[in-house]
Amino acid sequence: MAKWVIEKSESVFRTKIFSINRLLCTHPAKSVTHEFYILHNPDWINVVAIDTAGNFIFVEQHRLGTGTYTLETPAGLIETGEDPVEAAKRELLEETGYEAGKIVLMRKLAANPAIMNNYIYFFLAENCRKICEQQLDIAEDIRVKTFSPQEVQKMLSNGIIDHSIIVTALSLYFMQKEKFLL
Amino acid sequence: MAKWVIEKSESVFRTKIFSINRLLCTHPAKSVTHEFYILHNPDWINVVAIDTAGNFIFVEQHRLGTGTYTLETPAGLIETGEDPVEAAKRELLEETGYEAGKIVLMRKLAANPAIMNNYIYFFLAENCRKICEQQLDIAEDIRVKTFSPQEVQKMLSNGIIDHSIIVTALSLYFMQKEKFLL
Repeated sequence: MAKWVIEKSESVFRTKIFSINRLLCTHPAKSVTHEFYILHNPDWINVVAIDTAGNFIFVEQHRLGTGTYTLETPAGLIETGEDPVEAAKRELLEETGYEAGKIVLMRKLAANPAIMNNYIYFFLAENCRKICEQQLDIAEDIRVKTFSPQEVQKMLSNGIIDHSIIVTALSLYFMQKEKFLL
Repeated sequence: MAKWVIEKSESVFRTKIFSINRLLCTHPAKSVTHEFYILHNPDWINVVAIDTAGNFIFVEQHRLGTGTYTLETPAGLIETGEDPVEAAKRELLEETGYEAGKIVLMRKLAANPAIMNNYIYFFLAENCRKICEQQLDIAEDIRVKTFSPQEVQKMLSNGIIDHSIIVTALSLYFMQKEKFLL
């Protein structure tokens, strides 16, 4: 099982946030040149945030990919040169007005190694307190909602939470809490 | 919390597999026009596959997004007009040579509602038997590996399995098995 060899890489599309590279690759075990497209994204953070009463802090917003309202854990892009934990604190504060008493990295996972180059840092923020109002970007219109652990468990079960990355974040939290992750 | 209104949508990039639309949107609560880019992908399937001995069937391959080898549950694109469960059976057979005794949908989740339009169908395939050799696409070089539940749990814990969608698939399985999902 050999690695693909990149014979040529060229940028074929670019926005302010992401770009696409077209790769022409050969494979030692195959006699063809194959074309791949890779999305170059900044790394992302995602924060499972729990307030001092033990409730989970969610953000609800209208998303244009699916054209639906989604319930999500606070999340965003890591800015150039920014430390992941600082990005997590910043996004939590901007989107919800909450500040974490304690924040730890649960896991760093690849977003989608087949077509994306970036990683997602999943944080757990505990003892969060509301210290200010939201500070939203021009493209954000976000409602903050809090839910008990039982309500979150129910929304994972009945599919109300249907964003795969959010299911990942909450799964990491609950599997650690239930001692399934060693 | 209002919906974005799409004033203009245009296709700005296209490959054989995915395309990108640029949306110009207005928001009832804001005084600006904002630009969004949405990736249009086919829906995907992902299969947690367990053989008749109770071992998990994984595929290992070199991925060009991250430039790493990844351990993954079998997965792929749903072809136009194809039923998701048929896509799951097809990808399992093509990538591994295994056929499922029983296959059920665990969950349908949105891949990433902020920037993608597509959904991932997560299946559980049980009592899988090897009935033929792999039937790989020209762009696939895949090694099949099987692991016990304990080994999978360990690889989720120590980060050897670091592909976020695969962590989602396995989390859905283990959380159902442990009766955490109601």
